[in-house]
Amino acid sequence: MPKRVVLSIDAMGGDAAPAIVIDGVQRLAKAHGDGTVGVMLHGDSAQIEPLLAKNKAAAQISELRHTDTFVAMTDKPSQAIRKARGSSMWNAVEAVKTGEAHACVSAGNTGALMVLSKVLLHMAPNAHRPVIAASWPTVKGTSVVLDVGANVECAASQLVEFAIMGEAFHNALHGSASPSVGLLNIGTEDLKGNGVVREADALIRQINLDLNYLGFIEGDGISLGAADVVVTDGFTGNVALKTAEGTAKLAAEFLKLSLKRSPLTMLGALLSRSAFAELKSRMDPRKFNGGVFLGLGGVVVKSHGGTDGYGFFNALGVALNMARSDYAARIAVNLEKLATGITKANEADTPSQESTTS
Amino acid sequence: MPKRVVLSIDAMGGDAAPAIVIDGVQRLAKAHGDGTVGVMLHGDSAQIEPLLAKNKAAAQISELRHTDTFVAMTDKPSQAIRKARGSSMWNAVEAVKTGEAHACVSAGNTGALMVLSKVLLHMAPNAHRPVIAASWPTVKGTSVVLDVGANVECAASQLVEFAIMGEAFHNALHGSASPSVGLLNIGTEDLKGNGVVREADALIRQINLDLNYLGFIEGDGISLGAADVVVTDGFTGNVALKTAEGTAKLAAEFLKLSLKRSPLTMLGALLSRSAFAELKSRMDPRKFNGGVFLGLGGVVVKSHGGTDGYGFFNALGVALNMARSDYAARIAVNLEKLATGITKANEADTPSQESTTS
Repeated sequence: MPKRVVLSIDAMGGDAAPAIVIDGVQRLAKAHGDGTVGVMLHGDSAQIEPLLAKNKAAAQISELRHTDTFVAMTDKPSQAIRKARGSSMWNAVEAVKTGEAHACVSAGNTGALMVLSKVLLHMAPNAHRPVIAASWPTVKGTSVVLDVGANVECAASQLVEFAIMGEAFHNALHGSASPSVGLLNIGTEDLKGNGVVREADALIRQINLDLNYLGFIEGDGISLGAADVVVTDGFTGNVALKTAEGTAKLAAEFLKLSLKRSPLTMLGALLSRSAFAELKSRMDPRKFNGGVFLGLGGVVVKSHGGTDGYGFFNALGVALNMARSDYAARIAVNLEKLATGITKANEADTPSQESTTS
Repeated sequence: MPKRVVLSIDAMGGDAAPAIVIDGVQRLAKAHGDGTVGVMLHGDSAQIEPLLAKNKAAAQISELRHTDTFVAMTDKPSQAIRKARGSSMWNAVEAVKTGEAHACVSAGNTGALMVLSKVLLHMAPNAHRPVIAASWPTVKGTSVVLDVGANVECAASQLVEFAIMGEAFHNALHGSASPSVGLLNIGTEDLKGNGVVREADALIRQINLDLNYLGFIEGDGISLGAADVVVTDGFTGNVALKTAEGTAKLAAEFLKLSLKRSPLTMLGALLSRSAFAELKSRMDPRKFNGGVFLGLGGVVVKSHGGTDGYGFFNALGVALNMARSDYAARIAVNLEKLATGITKANEADTPSQESTTS
């Protein structure tokens, strides 16, 4: 039997909180009725208690921690941090810090959650910046893309950290022993792409990381499943993720228009309607909900703010998988190798007389 | 009647050249049988003449210019340029320089074509770097995205140049009087995104350009048609373009799988097959073939190297529209405003004593 996991939840985060949160917990409780999962709900008891009264399964695994202050979706991170202490988001993250919970989940303000998480949990050893990892449906299964928005500009060594953390994240979520890792670039030949990406590629090859590294992949390789883990900076990753969302909507729109072209095609569409339902489910963004902040001294999962109970349930599942995995130990080994490798490279760059003078 | 346009074609460029080239010219001749379009075919007459014998319409509008040297698809630009003089690609571009032709089209080596075009045609007045613009199907019509690969890193002023050139390109291709322009970013609020993008946004607003500028758009806005012209650096643009291609393939694959789920859905798919053909046609990459090098002192269209006759025909159509438009005059006005605006801003930054000393 797996170890008991406690998830610490910001019950007030998200456009339709706390209703979607309790709905998500209800689904979680039904899926894991064996007593191996518990949740702490941080938020306004006056709003949460009536919902728990209607969701018995959720109530059974929940411990309610009242607070009546919240971080608003519209607060800027700098504002949020000033008034955050004691808020539902703050308390949710703090429970991970104190060890009462194994992972935190919030559908609240992304920037505020990022800042709070960094302040409370600090970075993992040898990790320098938090990164947001997202799951992405592909022809071959599910890939992980990171960064999708936390770091708009990245040094080469940061991209290598992302590779290490993304690999462990994919392993935690999908259990593959050695997920493949690709660096997103605009050509697969050595000479293409920008300097930072080429430098990151050289760095990974130079340091003996425990990583199934494939080299460069191009944008079309993401959806085609060319690598289990796709590494890029937060600007490019965010654009790629949203471009894919837009293109999926475009394809759905074109499909709808084409099926309306004649009575015959409309009849065909009617007969095939279970196939279209299946198609919709395959690409359902709620199934891929739960962007994880990697690199911190604890697990923090960010649910989409506009999701529903099913989407929030999936974000809880991501947190559960992370909490049950050996993610922290897995990244520790490679991050230390990276830090040592960079130190050695810097020493080699320093002219020898430097160390003997003065 | 529109003015007679002569297109100068590298008949030897592309994976299946010269066959696809002559097929494309044949389609062009049939579409424009009024004597307003002529082509110059640069390449090996021993290979081209038998094809023209079989394609009478193409033969009627073609003038063959023999050469037996070619730039290979695998040549690096630095190699290509050394042996390029007198090649089919060189001669095709040179005919635009001499004024014998109004635009050049090649499906050959992109890097070599870019270098040759810059050497022979130079930059347009006040333009600093060539940029590759691509057409993109959207929910609302067709948008233009640039840069999709020529400049991996861009200064803010370059992005503004791209905005100016992309706007005139969209006008030339689609005839809208005032195409809207958006800057690709990772958030629509003023504070998000990277420094270069924010600086470009400020520069556009500061200089009084003749431009329907919308501000920032996000990745999903591309396929949703949020702007007629989407401006970004060549790294991000290339990743976005290829990510969309991959996602369209993923959607098609998922659709195929879903339709095979039962005999009923398969029957439905059979009845709807004309709709799927229409869907395929809507997203057919051959319809969007023809990336244009903007910013040069002449029009150069790059066809995809792996396209067929129909795709090459569409690239010829892009060249024809460009040649018939007032693209050059349209960008000249805005590029001069930009240059003047930047000069003024620099003068304002220079302390006044500087100009009086020495």
